[in-house]
Amino acid sequence: MFQTFDASSSPDQGPPRLAALRAELDRLGVDGFLIPRADVHQGEYVAPRDERLSWLTGFTGSAGFCVALKDRAGLFVDGRYRVQARQQCDEAFTIVHWPEVQLAAWLQDNMSGGKIAFDPWLHTVGQIDQLHEQLAGSDISLTASANLVDEIWADQPEKPMARAFAQPVEYAGESSAEKRARLGQDIANKGASAAVITLPDSLCWLLNIRGEDIAHNPVVHGFVILHADGTCDLIANPEKFTELGAHLGDGVTLRTEEDLLPTLQALTGPVLLERSSVPTAIAAALTSAGVPVVFAADPCSLPKACKNKAEIDGAVAAHLRDGVAVANFLAWFDENATKGITEIDVVTQLEGQRAATNMLRDISFDTIAGAGSNGAVIHYRVTHETNRTLQDGELLVLDSGGQYQDGTTDITRTLAIGTAGEEEKRAFTLVLKGMIAVSELRFPKGLAGRDIQSIARVPLWAAGLDFDHGLGHGVGSYLSVHEGPQSLSTKGHVPLEAGMIVSNEPGYYKEGAYGIRIENLLVVEPAPNLEGGDSHRQMLQFKTLPYVPIDLALVNADMLSPSERDWLNAYHEACFRTLNPHVDASTKGWLQKATARI
Amino acid sequence: MFQTFDASSSPDQGPPRLAALRAELDRLGVDGFLIPRADVHQGEYVAPRDERLSWLTGFTGSAGFCVALKDRAGLFVDGRYRVQARQQCDEAFTIVHWPEVQLAAWLQDNMSGGKIAFDPWLHTVGQIDQLHEQLAGSDISLTASANLVDEIWADQPEKPMARAFAQPVEYAGESSAEKRARLGQDIANKGASAAVITLPDSLCWLLNIRGEDIAHNPVVHGFVILHADGTCDLIANPEKFTELGAHLGDGVTLRTEEDLLPTLQALTGPVLLERSSVPTAIAAALTSAGVPVVFAADPCSLPKACKNKAEIDGAVAAHLRDGVAVANFLAWFDENATKGITEIDVVTQLEGQRAATNMLRDISFDTIAGAGSNGAVIHYRVTHETNRTLQDGELLVLDSGGQYQDGTTDITRTLAIGTAGEEEKRAFTLVLKGMIAVSELRFPKGLAGRDIQSIARVPLWAAGLDFDHGLGHGVGSYLSVHEGPQSLSTKGHVPLEAGMIVSNEPGYYKEGAYGIRIENLLVVEPAPNLEGGDSHRQMLQFKTLPYVPIDLALVNADMLSPSERDWLNAYHEACFRTLNPHVDASTKGWLQKATARI
Repeated sequence: MFQTFDASSSPDQGPPRLAALRAELDRLGVDGFLIPRADVHQGEYVAPRDERLSWLTGFTGSAGFCVALKDRAGLFVDGRYRVQARQQCDEAFTIVHWPEVQLAAWLQDNMSGGKIAFDPWLHTVGQIDQLHEQLAGSDISLTASANLVDEIWADQPEKPMARAFAQPVEYAGESSAEKRARLGQDIANKGASAAVITLPDSLCWLLNIRGEDIAHNPVVHGFVILHADGTCDLIANPEKFTELGAHLGDGVTLRTEEDLLPTLQALTGPVLLERSSVPTAIAAALTSAGVPVVFAADPCSLPKACKNKAEIDGAVAAHLRDGVAVANFLAWFDENATKGITEIDVVTQLEGQRAATNMLRDISFDTIAGAGSNGAVIHYRVTHETNRTLQDGELLVLDSGGQYQDGTTDITRTLAIGTAGEEEKRAFTLVLKGMIAVSELRFPKGLAGRDIQSIARVPLWAAGLDFDHGLGHGVGSYLSVHEGPQSLSTKGHVPLEAGMIVSNEPGYYKEGAYGIRIENLLVVEPAPNLEGGDSHRQMLQFKTLPYVPIDLALVNADMLSPSERDWLNAYHEACFRTLNPHVDASTKGWLQKATARI
Repeated sequence: MFQTFDASSSPDQGPPRLAALRAELDRLGVDGFLIPRADVHQGEYVAPRDERLSWLTGFTGSAGFCVALKDRAGLFVDGRYRVQARQQCDEAFTIVHWPEVQLAAWLQDNMSGGKIAFDPWLHTVGQIDQLHEQLAGSDISLTASANLVDEIWADQPEKPMARAFAQPVEYAGESSAEKRARLGQDIANKGASAAVITLPDSLCWLLNIRGEDIAHNPVVHGFVILHADGTCDLIANPEKFTELGAHLGDGVTLRTEEDLLPTLQALTGPVLLERSSVPTAIAAALTSAGVPVVFAADPCSLPKACKNKAEIDGAVAAHLRDGVAVANFLAWFDENATKGITEIDVVTQLEGQRAATNMLRDISFDTIAGAGSNGAVIHYRVTHETNRTLQDGELLVLDSGGQYQDGTTDITRTLAIGTAGEEEKRAFTLVLKGMIAVSELRFPKGLAGRDIQSIARVPLWAAGLDFDHGLGHGVGSYLSVHEGPQSLSTKGHVPLEAGMIVSNEPGYYKEGAYGIRIENLLVVEPAPNLEGGDSHRQMLQFKTLPYVPIDLALVNADMLSPSERDWLNAYHEACFRTLNPHVDASTKGWLQKATARI
């Protein structure tokens, strides 16, 4: 299985490790050290070697950071992770409510002055610039240093070294040479002669390769220097690429990681860097060598987000395959939900159905299977310690996905365990109304996620409810399940464009009681002109990717408008038509019932 | 009457005036001069003396600017004004599509290099900083100079010199001394010792005064230097204030305009300026005297927008009074619409009804009364030349408001002239659905206008339609009918707060055919907790201010959902209950019919 159920942190090790780190502070003559969650490539998920934050503090969440001072240590985590951080960490770590309390403000409140050291490979130019600004006028200064956690982590794992493999043009839809040629032109148009790519999914998309350096994220760790002429330097452990020479071709020069800084420093023209992702170490190396720098978005970011026809066709195929696996699981669940199964049984059975496609490369992320009150933990990951037996009357939030060579899936269904209560049905139907409103939305070209994401919340707002996460995120093509630059949230400022894949996942969470989330992935596509519409207006719409029934046992049909009911009936009719030829024989009866008209 | 129907520009004068301006360019040794629409106080409306743009070019729109070079002149106007600019201006002026084409880009395309002069009193720090940035690396430089239009405008009117008068605390709800004390504290908290206030409505709100320096905007032109201790210098022509000494009190020191720069330059501590409104001349004077500057929002802006109880009570009273006048007008209109009346008759009759309240201080803006295709001109102002006789089957867009001592009103109704067509009724009902959705919206505290304004557009989008203006703007309390910082548009980034007044005015415009707009002003207020809602969520809602019937002849009731129909019936019931005791006897029959249940 791709998923394990072990608790992965060692909170009892926190105090001795912190003491060892403080000895390093003294040795170096500094007053504090920053320990971010991020690795060099600023990924959401990191390799075991880069789990410095959880190694030191015991905290295993996907966002947060620690600052260790001589006499105290602050662990900065956001609202999703405060309960978890308190459970996982020794009292030697003070939990700080971030982003309400910013690092600079906490430092000024907790030390009179001194030097804070940081590893310049793990912090971006944007982060350090902002911190410098916020600390201006204080007696606290920043200083780049070696990574002090690495100095004391005796059995730190090695860097990931999985073999890279080709993503054929049949799935990628465009050769790497073509991508590099058009992006090189963009780089030239921005007045630069080269761009440094540090994000692994940008690198993989650009070179049409994939890898296994990070669990559930089929990426390769490395750097690319993309030149305006379309050639590039690929800087990574060459052993990853021993079988890929022909695939990479003449335009790609392979170099070792030791070559990164010398190669950069030998550049002449302005070099394009992305402020929000490039390590300060890279910017500093360029500047010290007198190489001018231009800050702009990673040139891969937008082209990667706008999927081409091959990628969209792949996403459709992957969603059909994945939908069949999920439907087979749902039929099993319908049969067994009240027979004493556990959350781990659910995860195991679902992964088994995906594996049975014989096409599963990995799961997209650790499956979230939260029954009852566990469903209210938005990023819940079941362990042997937290595993619950499903109880009649509870809800199960099931958020999961698969990595297939033709596409990445991510789907959430909320399921009734036995008979659901009226309160739960009402809340579920409010969430469903918002999910439908976005599914059938037409909107003008030029708008960003921020401009439309509230539309999913209006039914919940009218009932005095809401959910504390974005409505949706971008999704890669056999790449990261979370990708930018678009986002259906208040942070989504990049206009939506045809070919972008986004999730549509409204929810509702009642702490200590239950959770609800319904999620489909959508592709942005041009909307056809309508009879009586203004033909000069360019409008966009969403095409729904997955066809998997929504649990009718949770729908209060009286709360749906005629058009919402039409949408749901049409969706279920399409589910039946799409899935029925492919599901297990034992699933067909369930499918018919699950897609009945209401 | 407050409104006139004369066309106000002299296009034939454009070429000789441009020639005279070019002689000034030569005299000064520069290659171009910028002529903005704005005055020193960056108001939307300007005094006759400040109508430099229309004096030079003939263009009378409320937004745009000109740059006069030696051999060509560009007139930059946005989409609302391109047709108008072409009609009003001589070919000597090239119409430039702004903001698609930015000034810096046009300059680089239209001159090889040289000096562009500008009047540093008419351009903000934000504008000039941005222009400097955009011109970096080019051979074009900027230079502050005297105003070259003023040099050649022989009969330029004098500065406005209307008497200021007090806005009693009964209407203002808070004394000027109290306002100044709390804003002074804010200024101190931002690390400044004083703030410069250059916006006339900020000045009037802060000092609880009003004036008549600008038509329809009851403001006084002047400057305030507000000190952290709550005292201030009021810099303006002292003759405006001869009767206001006692009202202003000890904390206000009156100074002449000649004293502005010396007083500023005598300051010591950091001085707070608003980048987007302060003239560069003021920032430059401070900098040259070594006075440090802090950029932040005008400290009056947000407190002014959040109305207190007295201001909200005043708004309610003003809207009742204004609603009665509009209802009396509507009854007359119903009787006369198809009897050969004109747009000017409509404007005259409506202003007459408002004047008959004996409380009208001014109209809020020139009434927009656009019949048929004139209704599709969003900012239409009827003149003797454009005046149309109303035709059976057409629509009339009627957007108007009154300035009363207790509040400013702004209301739009679209009226059927005789019998409306099905297409018009369908479009009207789509607009109405959006207007209702916002009227009954509940939303979480912390969201800005941008986060919610799309909700009004969804029904239009679904039909392939939209409208090309914001959904709504802030409104002052017996002050400017357009005020910030909040805005229901893609530019609205300031969170909505209780007490803010905003317009809710979706529309639809079919060029050359008809226009539709429905507008009510709304007050933001805390929403009560709901049974079954999350009590920890702070939510807001809107209270509707005007009670004026919506033309049922334009409503296709089959297109309304049950809850939309309920809203409309409840609104009309409230209209009847509110207006019936106050309207003319001859209006009562119409009112009953106009508020019938559907």
